[in-house]
Amino acid sequence: MTYYIGDVIKDETRLIARTPEQFEKSGVKVRLKTGAEEIDTEKGEVRLDNGERLPYDSLVMGTGSKVFLPDIPGIYEEGVFKLKNLRDGINIKTYIKERQCGSDKCRKAIILGAGFIAMEMSEAMRNLGLETRVVYRGELPVKKWDPEFSRVILEELTKNQVDFVPNKTPVAIERQGKESNLRLITNDGEMEADIIIIAMGVRPNVTLAEQTGLKIGNTGAIMVDFSQRTSQEEIYAVGDCCGVYHRISRKWIYMPLGDIANKQGRVAGGNIGGYPMSFPGIVGAQSFKVFDLEVATTGVDESEAEKSGCHPVSTIIWSTPSARSLSKGRKLGLKLIANKSTGKLLGAQAVGEGGAVTKINALSVCLWSGMNIDEIGYMDLAYSPSFGGAWDPIQTAAQVLKKNL
Amino acid sequence: MTYYIGDVIKDETRLIARTPEQFEKSGVKVRLKTGAEEIDTEKGEVRLDNGERLPYDSLVMGTGSKVFLPDIPGIYEEGVFKLKNLRDGINIKTYIKERQCGSDKCRKAIILGAGFIAMEMSEAMRNLGLETRVVYRGELPVKKWDPEFSRVILEELTKNQVDFVPNKTPVAIERQGKESNLRLITNDGEMEADIIIIAMGVRPNVTLAEQTGLKIGNTGAIMVDFSQRTSQEEIYAVGDCCGVYHRISRKWIYMPLGDIANKQGRVAGGNIGGYPMSFPGIVGAQSFKVFDLEVATTGVDESEAEKSGCHPVSTIIWSTPSARSLSKGRKLGLKLIANKSTGKLLGAQAVGEGGAVTKINALSVCLWSGMNIDEIGYMDLAYSPSFGGAWDPIQTAAQVLKKNL
Repeated sequence: MTYYIGDVIKDETRLIARTPEQFEKSGVKVRLKTGAEEIDTEKGEVRLDNGERLPYDSLVMGTGSKVFLPDIPGIYEEGVFKLKNLRDGINIKTYIKERQCGSDKCRKAIILGAGFIAMEMSEAMRNLGLETRVVYRGELPVKKWDPEFSRVILEELTKNQVDFVPNKTPVAIERQGKESNLRLITNDGEMEADIIIIAMGVRPNVTLAEQTGLKIGNTGAIMVDFSQRTSQEEIYAVGDCCGVYHRISRKWIYMPLGDIANKQGRVAGGNIGGYPMSFPGIVGAQSFKVFDLEVATTGVDESEAEKSGCHPVSTIIWSTPSARSLSKGRKLGLKLIANKSTGKLLGAQAVGEGGAVTKINALSVCLWSGMNIDEIGYMDLAYSPSFGGAWDPIQTAAQVLKKNL
Repeated sequence: MTYYIGDVIKDETRLIARTPEQFEKSGVKVRLKTGAEEIDTEKGEVRLDNGERLPYDSLVMGTGSKVFLPDIPGIYEEGVFKLKNLRDGINIKTYIKERQCGSDKCRKAIILGAGFIAMEMSEAMRNLGLETRVVYRGELPVKKWDPEFSRVILEELTKNQVDFVPNKTPVAIERQGKESNLRLITNDGEMEADIIIIAMGVRPNVTLAEQTGLKIGNTGAIMVDFSQRTSQEEIYAVGDCCGVYHRISRKWIYMPLGDIANKQGRVAGGNIGGYPMSFPGIVGAQSFKVFDLEVATTGVDESEAEKSGCHPVSTIIWSTPSARSLSKGRKLGLKLIANKSTGKLLGAQAVGEGGAVTKINALSVCLWSGMNIDEIGYMDLAYSPSFGGAWDPIQTAAQVLKKNL
């Protein structure tokens, strides 16, 4: 008997069930609103919070992540929201909708954090008509990207009336400001808001794993091997609770993203079901949209490259998402990072009013297969004036970078 | 001394000149409106149409392609246009503009051919307000794509009031129909139009090459090697006049596309200038836009795969250009073709209201580096709901196809 905590995929290419009823029909027992309190690895049993004990041959940990909340007074005040699951989204929308008029109208939002979830939230808040502020301890948003690109994102925020407040660390949240419900105290001044949203990242949820004695990696996530097995052979871990192998840095890292979780789930399922599978790792591809900007990255940045023992060289070029004559002023910035000693691509970043994700996806495959920038400069891509120039920005950037090797 | 016929790029990453004056300033002599009548390979001289003889050490043929015109009466009538260069575009626009009112108003257009240039032209004609017909000898447009995708393109034409007339071969064009300037006679009935545009493809222009005794390949184009040298060591050929190596079919083929020509030019220039370079071939990536559809392909189709000794298996899946909840009914079709014996990807096609080019570019890199569909099913791409689901259609299609191996 195998118990899964999370979704179950039995068939190789098709999700067989989405609702508890569908799962049951497929012969998979589902326990909702049931906590797993303890895993007894010697007996091969899980103790549930209702006292019941379930035996297992294989067990999959899909305990996910938990929101990082700063340890400051007032973090649990009404009107302060974390951002993790569907329920949080519904709570935020309900809170704003219930305060559409009158003296407690929800007018002002503060978002703490400036990662890609914070960027997406700022757009959502503006779309709901709120005055929106992003408050961040650093100088520029989305520090994973080059400052030149972060500045473009900052311009996009400004263009859409999102106020980016840099260099501020939250110290406390208090109820009842002068004009609004809440007051945010920072290390450098205070500001008011009717709603405060915490988007400062997540941490792996490893409470049960630690209690069970599973090995935890340097990243704080459950250690797994390429078959998704933990340090206990019969226990697997998948998704936001475990680490993942980065093919470019050649390190096990923590990257809690939905596409990675899905793949890991399939790999664990295959291994348990008797189809041996291996998770081949990631190259660090990710993307988001903020207002009219596409933002994407893949591979490693310079500092990660240096930590992996590489000598990174990089270049940024500015191009257009379609042929210049058709782009109507829209821009596309592309950064490539390569290893000076080998010429191999190490990473890429892109920001643009269109075109960023398509470049980063192609470059992710280049990273995946270990291509060097010589090859990338002349590889064959689908050219059409509607989608780019006769020289793709990828090729131009690779040829420029080649000179720095 | 080196003479180029075509553009010159001296610097490795920068076009140094665009106008004749800029070329001259860079020390490159430019002769416009000057024909090359004969190449004397023994003396190393080119005889120009003004009688002058220019000596060369290296020579680059960039004689391009010529339009294919069907050998039928009336093909040179006024109002019948070929489609090749900027001048043709200007001529077409002028012709239509000069007939904006009165009895000879240009109301109806016929486009002969149904390749991707014909598709783009049909959009252009509709944008100019003309009743537009595409007349083609085959059953469906763009035969390079799977019939399932060609039918989607046909629907897009119909939705935009372009009348697609299949199974008709032009027999003659006559002046003065009943209501229009021109009458097209086909093997099966006739129809009238005020303008007829021939978009039936191009052929390599090899007249001078043949006179010079350069070897011509099976494709009808000048034979070159990976350094772009012709059968005469000191004569290079680049662009639409020469063949190109297809890495997937492992054959020299004819594919007159602008991005390929640009790369070949750089390679020839490098070799002549003392920086030995090799053109690595193509995978056959191409794309076009027709109205709201993106259409793209890469690699080979089933029949090309069979000719190359492969055993192709394929699958088509229908997905969406962004997460299903954000796609507002927009669709994206993706076809993958793999080799049954090796599992290697052989080709891909995509059609969609967005997303087709980004998929085909990523898959072009997969083809470039010889990836198999096992790997493609689990590789890392930049996931975000704005740009797709947690499982990219590429991965879903690869996993479905895997079952057919």
